[in-house]
Amino acid sequence: MHISAKLAEAQRLQRPSYSFEFFPPKTAQGVQNLYDRMDRMHGFGPSFIDITWGAGGRLATLTCEMVNTAQSAYGLETCMHLTCTDMQKSKIDEALKEAYNAGCTNILALRGDPPREKEKWEATAGGFRYAKDLVKYIRDAYGNHFDIGVAGYPEGCDDQDDPELLIEHLKQKIDAGGTFVITQMFYDADLFLEWVAKCRKAGINVPIIPGLMPIHTHAAFMRRANWTKCHVPPEWHEKLNPIKNDDAAVREVGAQLVADLCRKLLDNGIIHLHFYTMNLAQATRMVLDSLALTPTSDSPASKPLPWRQSLGLNRRDENVRPIFWRNRNRSYVARTQDWDEFPNGRWGDSRSPAYGELDTYGIGLKGTNEANRKLWGEPKTLKDVADLFVSYMSGKVEALPWSESPISSEADTLRDDLINLNSRGLLTINSQPPVDGARSSHPVYGWGPRNGYVFQKAYLEVLVSPELITELLTRMDRNEDITYYAVNQAGDLKTNAGDGSGHGDEGPNAVTWGVFPGKEIVQPTIVETVSFLAWRDEFFRLGNDWSRCYDASSVSRHVIKEMMETWYLLNIVHNDFRQQRGIFPLFEGLQVPDMDQPMKGLTNGDTHSNDKKPTVNGKHSASNVNGHAEAEAQTNGEKPETQGADLSEPHVTGADTSKKDDKATNGYHDA
Amino acid sequence: MHISAKLAEAQRLQRPSYSFEFFPPKTAQGVQNLYDRMDRMHGFGPSFIDITWGAGGRLATLTCEMVNTAQSAYGLETCMHLTCTDMQKSKIDEALKEAYNAGCTNILALRGDPPREKEKWEATAGGFRYAKDLVKYIRDAYGNHFDIGVAGYPEGCDDQDDPELLIEHLKQKIDAGGTFVITQMFYDADLFLEWVAKCRKAGINVPIIPGLMPIHTHAAFMRRANWTKCHVPPEWHEKLNPIKNDDAAVREVGAQLVADLCRKLLDNGIIHLHFYTMNLAQATRMVLDSLALTPTSDSPASKPLPWRQSLGLNRRDENVRPIFWRNRNRSYVARTQDWDEFPNGRWGDSRSPAYGELDTYGIGLKGTNEANRKLWGEPKTLKDVADLFVSYMSGKVEALPWSESPISSEADTLRDDLINLNSRGLLTINSQPPVDGARSSHPVYGWGPRNGYVFQKAYLEVLVSPELITELLTRMDRNEDITYYAVNQAGDLKTNAGDGSGHGDEGPNAVTWGVFPGKEIVQPTIVETVSFLAWRDEFFRLGNDWSRCYDASSVSRHVIKEMMETWYLLNIVHNDFRQQRGIFPLFEGLQVPDMDQPMKGLTNGDTHSNDKKPTVNGKHSASNVNGHAEAEAQTNGEKPETQGADLSEPHVTGADTSKKDDKATNGYHDA
Repeated sequence: MHISAKLAEAQRLQRPSYSFEFFPPKTAQGVQNLYDRMDRMHGFGPSFIDITWGAGGRLATLTCEMVNTAQSAYGLETCMHLTCTDMQKSKIDEALKEAYNAGCTNILALRGDPPREKEKWEATAGGFRYAKDLVKYIRDAYGNHFDIGVAGYPEGCDDQDDPELLIEHLKQKIDAGGTFVITQMFYDADLFLEWVAKCRKAGINVPIIPGLMPIHTHAAFMRRANWTKCHVPPEWHEKLNPIKNDDAAVREVGAQLVADLCRKLLDNGIIHLHFYTMNLAQATRMVLDSLALTPTSDSPASKPLPWRQSLGLNRRDENVRPIFWRNRNRSYVARTQDWDEFPNGRWGDSRSPAYGELDTYGIGLKGTNEANRKLWGEPKTLKDVADLFVSYMSGKVEALPWSESPISSEADTLRDDLINLNSRGLLTINSQPPVDGARSSHPVYGWGPRNGYVFQKAYLEVLVSPELITELLTRMDRNEDITYYAVNQAGDLKTNAGDGSGHGDEGPNAVTWGVFPGKEIVQPTIVETVSFLAWRDEFFRLGNDWSRCYDASSVSRHVIKEMMETWYLLNIVHNDFRQQRGIFPLFEGLQVPDMDQPMKGLTNGDTHSNDKKPTVNGKHSASNVNGHAEAEAQTNGEKPETQGADLSEPHVTGADTSKKDDKATNGYHDA
Repeated sequence: MHISAKLAEAQRLQRPSYSFEFFPPKTAQGVQNLYDRMDRMHGFGPSFIDITWGAGGRLATLTCEMVNTAQSAYGLETCMHLTCTDMQKSKIDEALKEAYNAGCTNILALRGDPPREKEKWEATAGGFRYAKDLVKYIRDAYGNHFDIGVAGYPEGCDDQDDPELLIEHLKQKIDAGGTFVITQMFYDADLFLEWVAKCRKAGINVPIIPGLMPIHTHAAFMRRANWTKCHVPPEWHEKLNPIKNDDAAVREVGAQLVADLCRKLLDNGIIHLHFYTMNLAQATRMVLDSLALTPTSDSPASKPLPWRQSLGLNRRDENVRPIFWRNRNRSYVARTQDWDEFPNGRWGDSRSPAYGELDTYGIGLKGTNEANRKLWGEPKTLKDVADLFVSYMSGKVEALPWSESPISSEADTLRDDLINLNSRGLLTINSQPPVDGARSSHPVYGWGPRNGYVFQKAYLEVLVSPELITELLTRMDRNEDITYYAVNQAGDLKTNAGDGSGHGDEGPNAVTWGVFPGKEIVQPTIVETVSFLAWRDEFFRLGNDWSRCYDASSVSRHVIKEMMETWYLLNIVHNDFRQQRGIFPLFEGLQVPDMDQPMKGLTNGDTHSNDKKPTVNGKHSASNVNGHAEAEAQTNGEKPETQGADLSEPHVTGADTSKKDDKATNGYHDA
């Protein structure tokens, strides 16, 4: 969407908006960290972001790549900076084409820094001399595809201080096809407002966006102020100087100063604020919080679908995805980027979607081995692994190899059940509670247009040890509300979908859907075989990546590798979305045996290892029997109190965390 | 679907099935009556039907047309008879091609009757001599597209009495490609079973279907028995002779005799019964009832979608239709028969579906003018028209110009509201109650696979007089749960969909949908602009057809014509399917004025006519004011007791006919 259209909408609704500027970091780790930060900052609700042009070589490529990732994977409307004086025409063509292909529709056209050895601007051979040349070139080549922004200099620029002349230049850039202006940073609202008035008088009628620099540290603030030569109101120095050695205080006071500046702009009819974030989140966040502009749980950011939509070229209408990548959005976008069409309305008949191979950039495990060892410790036993999962479910660990973000608030209602499962060695990977028609404005489950209802079928993805899988499959086969797929690394697939048992077709199973006024039914999330098998590859790859964070001869490497080789990845859908707790009772009485014992084949003093039946290939028959006996005993002790779902609170059944049994338990209480 | 596949399925499930044979009637009215009967007999749950070959000229064309209509419009799996000895090869090619294009996949290949003047069979030039030639020809030309049935003669046929030779001929027909056998009628189970045993011994292994003739009258029974020379067990004559002049008694006793015959067959492993219905329903129905084979409310016929699916060539995957033709299924199929693709999953982007013109066969008003006058009387005033509608809603009149069948049981919960509206001159055309997740097995609302839930948004289509339309539109515009379209014959369209009011997009609005285990969400019924405008054409055409049932100078003609020229056809969706009675409160206090007065421009003593403002073009301002005043008075007198839907019985909210007001009334109580 064009930035000028977004600004017009903000103006129409009189709802202030804001945007964030980032620059391409110099290291790969820096890029990864910035992506994570951009992902989080999506939650601040920016109207768009922009990425500066990394002039020359690798950084230019990186700008294009970041625009693509921000636009496609993070669903951020992205404006690409592009400079011209230091660029060959062919490079500009290439950059514009890449921006186009990424789905980017906004360019900030800039002149660029002068080559160091020269004092005055010169066009490169066949190239451009002024930003207005670039504006005209883009307009001629792409018509109205791109909205084209240009830079404004309220307080002069490097090689030109004449304010009248600068406004004349700006007018020329607009006349050449520019549709909005972003200014250099400034600290003095009055100077900016006066300058805007002059621009208007000069016939510049496009939106003018103020560029604002939040204060991260006193040193950075001073460096910027000197470098840009912009006027700093004396009050700023008076307030910041006395505390200049206290970074926290500087950020606090700085946030108030910048917020006051913003307030003055908003009061004077400026509807949009552009923040030079310096790739940092906190200072900008503090300003926005102070202005009370960020989304809150009372008025959450609008969420058109339960997952983050891509703004990639062909993906804007995409509205169905498999649930498996819910915690790995970026990987899903990468693995599907070569698709010609994206599912819209239904997953449909795309029975053999071709998922990209695992060597695509960004699919493997993130972070260095050292960082990962620090994050996840060095598990010596299955119990250590289970404890790690419990810590993640409790919010004490921020990520797992399969979940890039902390556990979401949607899992709140399941937390006790999830912790309980994991503590028994049933390692949960992904889950959602059933929702029987929550309002689309619901702070946790809501998405889509207002006055609608959203629904979910209960979903659980869990890594199951070979000792337990057979009993679990038997229990699930008995329950006609359950559909499942289980698969191990070797590709042994077990499912009750499409087997004529009445559990379901082999087609896609919609697990999230919404009903809205005046619209067709939207069903953004599905479970489906081919996609699950593609996710299986990625899942085991990530697990193996994790094992390789540890030395080849280490116990940790062995424990994790063993799990990857013998355990089953199992997904379960409970098709009756009115049952509040349909899935968890399936696991009653099941527990991975001997979790605190070293695993087989290890020579570090495990005296029991010779007594145990092997756990490889699901042949751990002795423990298997124990597992059954336990299950029966525990089940008999916990008779279900009631039959049928409690219908007195039907709106969000998932919100009820009571342990009341429902009819889903019928299937195996007499097992 | 192939008949042999259906028989295999019946065998696998050990669930007896049955089929009905019809022949092409001689008159157009006879064809229409038969279509109506076939439509009703769909409800008996036949596995398939067949249509005999109307050898020669018009009747052959009629067979093809009937196969097409049965297959496409009535969704009956249809087997086309085809004879060969009396047919040119080109005619056979044509018939096969038409069957193929109709979606028909079953042919009963027959030899045909001998030309009268000849004693022995002869092939026509370039034609066929035996049925086996035809079987081979079809197999060669169409591969396995068609399942090919052949005739079996357990008791000999016209020109051949040698049972051994006849079995040899049958074997040859099977060897040529026949895949099932339907026998001539018989009354003696033992003879049939012995003959089947002989066939099996001769190596005939395809399914053999017994042909059974229910007894309609004693004369017909005797005529048939003599004509086919089949053996009638003495018991039949003993039981039927004494009552032969009492038709009712003959049918009753005959049904028991045929049912006993069927029972004996079923007990001997025959899984399918084929009935020669003679185009009559009752006698066959009595046999099936006696065998307890027809669907009941306890075990209703499976209903894959809320509307009857077409089995036309390209339509088998069609699963979305506009709601407007709900009571005119056949007309919908006719008007969309030329579409290249049919909506599957979503109505989608087919924003300009091209509906066929109204001159397509079968779209105009059914029945003769005389019959229609008899059915609908001769209304002299609006009150007479309203009374007719009330009678239809009460089940006392079987059809209306816009509804070919009696009001359905789904309207039961709305009946009081509908009667009330119609009695006030608000003439209801189509309606459905809201359903908040009824089980898919629900006897009234259920459809689709088992263990699912089905939903509906409340829908009402109503013909509104110009005096009331403005007030109604105002009320609806205030209610954010309502989307509506109103249009008059002249094409003046009023809607709140897609007007930015937040009531909805201009896209399709799903009003019926279902959630099933292991499947994507199914949404078989939608409301949508272009389709509504096509329905508008048909609606007003039918109304004008009705007016023309009366003499050009008659009051009835004038009254109906006036309505067609000035009233609005309005459809209303209440988007909150959890509100039990969202639509009807919109009409509170509204009443068409002076309904029992003769309409304007009539010279039969209407003393008030000069005092009245004209009702044309919605300018009846005086009455309009009265309407408002009444509305206010009545509204104030009936304060809503509660706010919010009652959630204690959420499963089928439509089943609650209580008059409890809900929040939908907020919009206009302060009007």
